[in-house]
Amino acid sequence: MGTTQADLTRTAGKPIHCKAAVARKPGEPLVIEEVIVAPPKVHEVRLKIICTSLCHSDVTFWKLKDFPGCFPRILGHEAFGVVESVGEDVHDLKEGDSVVPIFLPDCAQCIDCTSKKSNNCSKFEFKVSPWMLRDGTSRFTTVDGETLYHFLSVSSFAEYTVVDIANVMKIDPCVPPNRACLFSCGVSTGVGAALKSAKVEPGSTVVIFGLGAIGLAVAEGARISGASRIIGVDINSDKFEIGKQFGVTDFVNSNSYGDKPISQVINEMTNGGGDYCFECVGMGKLVQEAYACCRKGWGKTIVLGVDKPGAELTFKSFDVLHLGKTLIGSLFGGLKPKSDIPLLVKRYLDKELQLDKFVTHEVSFQDINKAFDLHVEGKSLRCVVWMDK
Amino acid sequence: MGTTQADLTRTAGKPIHCKAAVARKPGEPLVIEEVIVAPPKVHEVRLKIICTSLCHSDVTFWKLKDFPGCFPRILGHEAFGVVESVGEDVHDLKEGDSVVPIFLPDCAQCIDCTSKKSNNCSKFEFKVSPWMLRDGTSRFTTVDGETLYHFLSVSSFAEYTVVDIANVMKIDPCVPPNRACLFSCGVSTGVGAALKSAKVEPGSTVVIFGLGAIGLAVAEGARISGASRIIGVDINSDKFEIGKQFGVTDFVNSNSYGDKPISQVINEMTNGGGDYCFECVGMGKLVQEAYACCRKGWGKTIVLGVDKPGAELTFKSFDVLHLGKTLIGSLFGGLKPKSDIPLLVKRYLDKELQLDKFVTHEVSFQDINKAFDLHVEGKSLRCVVWMDK
Ligand SMILES: [Zn+2]
Ligand SMILES: [Zn+2]
Ligand SMILES: [Zn+2]
Ligand SMILES: [Zn+2]
Repeated sequence: MGTTQADLTRTAGKPIHCKAAVARKPGEPLVIEEVIVAPPKVHEVRLKIICTSLCHSDVTFWKLKDFPGCFPRILGHEAFGVVESVGEDVHDLKEGDSVVPIFLPDCAQCIDCTSKKSNNCSKFEFKVSPWMLRDGTSRFTTVDGETLYHFLSVSSFAEYTVVDIANVMKIDPCVPPNRACLFSCGVSTGVGAALKSAKVEPGSTVVIFGLGAIGLAVAEGARISGASRIIGVDINSDKFEIGKQFGVTDFVNSNSYGDKPISQVINEMTNGGGDYCFECVGMGKLVQEAYACCRKGWGKTIVLGVDKPGAELTFKSFDVLHLGKTLIGSLFGGLKPKSDIPLLVKRYLDKELQLDKFVTHEVSFQDINKAFDLHVEGKSLRCVVWMDK
Repeated sequence: MGTTQADLTRTAGKPIHCKAAVARKPGEPLVIEEVIVAPPKVHEVRLKIICTSLCHSDVTFWKLKDFPGCFPRILGHEAFGVVESVGEDVHDLKEGDSVVPIFLPDCAQCIDCTSKKSNNCSKFEFKVSPWMLRDGTSRFTTVDGETLYHFLSVSSFAEYTVVDIANVMKIDPCVPPNRACLFSCGVSTGVGAALKSAKVEPGSTVVIFGLGAIGLAVAEGARISGASRIIGVDINSDKFEIGKQFGVTDFVNSNSYGDKPISQVINEMTNGGGDYCFECVGMGKLVQEAYACCRKGWGKTIVLGVDKPGAELTFKSFDVLHLGKTLIGSLFGGLKPKSDIPLLVKRYLDKELQLDKFVTHEVSFQDINKAFDLHVEGKSLRCVVWMDK
């Protein structure tokens, strides 16, 4: 990367002037500006971002006019970086470490983070806050002294950022930066949902509602798990060609069946439903369809999609009781950031988990708005933004 | 029992005249009448009922004016009996075998019955039919030739009954009849929900909504599993004293907190919710309360209660996705009749599973209506009805 330990530590303890892509108004192009990044406080580290990729949530919050949307903000939460300096009481990380920030906090100490079963930290509740996790302030200002908001505890659309130690994990430096950043959010979520939340068994039939990056990552996780049939459901038939590269074996265009419920289509195709049905869109109605076409007796419906605030899910009581189905909520694929992501990284290094096809585009930092365009036009799965290029 | 092989086979192939308690009108006392029980057809066996116990569903259908309620009907589905004779193509059962009828079909051949995961037979769909499982006719008539309806494929409120081989399992004759009959339905459902559907782990906190026989059986299953805290929720505080005998450690009277949701009471008591929450009442609102007080990150809500037809369950989409909870429907406790009940029987014979306290009353057949009175008045858990006494 051309950055030496000496380069990095030269800046420790001092504010860093660097470039950031600032979201100033909802839906308007990001503005690359000079910003000042304060040194990390206690339990924080400052990262030099090497590359970052665009996730659907970045776009959602970029467009969001009302709170929790807020401006001016530095978006971005999928990234690979190097620790530039560490704050007080940071023991597990040091300058020069290769790291990946993770939006979901893992304090490593609370009852949830020390449990094998939960990824829902009790010390730091997950919420989309505009501030640093621990003290509720910002580390970013403009040269004019204007405060810039954080995003998902990461804010990686900047050359430097500050993250809490609960939001960062070390990663093997053998992983190329433009693959490492994928572990931060979307790909991990989908692969984790298949491997950890659902525990897909070999030979099973998997149904995936929504073939965006997360749905395709579910397919990749299902493929790794030995699923024999992976049915993709989407309103865009182009997704089938893409899906095939991730192991999707069958495609259902949900707009092609008139009034016939898609669950019925799937039930007929599968002679009774899928063993695992994943909802990756974030529509209550689709969760219900997924539940309706998961196999009685043992079927699991896994909810990954983020619906509108206040949205509700309704099921028939009889179906819940009599059909022996299971409904599982899967935040970040059920993965514990600090213990489970390294297992996915190992699968990648072992060439079991395939990441290359997720990266459809790469741009330089000055072209970051192209990444938004590509996403909005549905042309990219992941567009990697290189900070130094 | 004083019934020899010779006694039994003397009647094989012929209609049997015997006594049955017939439900003639909704909610009116059963009438003990002479009935004629036809010989078993192909894949059927005729049983001499030794004793039967009253379950809540018997009372529900006894009161039910509209279909699937129907009259005149022979109710009863928890029983212990001896095979009197077998129909054609019955290979696994013979005259004299000790058996327990089970309302949930287990054909032993379909994809579900041969799977380890499902108890939801595909060959014979579970439904509350007034007929025999396979040919949709009745084996019961009055001496005047009037057809009597079956109930739940069992109809054990008679000295003899005919059941399909999918609805009957052999039981070790060492089990006393008035304990064997408990395995037919309610107790198995509750114990199974804890052991099989939920897989309660040692040291966990269990919350049970509704301390009827099924809820207490959940407590017994949770106790066996090593749960360290078992919280019973009911509107009747007398249930706490009873509950203590089944391992209930804490009691919450849901009428004692005004407008405060019971989920909040439980969340405060448990510092974040129960590991396993069981709904045993059959009220959608309680399922939602149970879900709301099961632990984020790993909590499971298990639905056992049978709600009204058409009832719906509604959850907040955010809660489902973000809190990592699981919702499980548990019909018959998730038990596979022919493979799992023998495991419960073994636990009983090993003195691990305690059944004695479930039997609060025993009456003779001629007093069967007392069993209904005791149930309606909330005085009994299980009242065993002895046919020969
Ligand atoms: Zn924590
Ligand atoms: Zn994301
Ligand atoms: Zn079957
Ligand atoms: Zn019952």
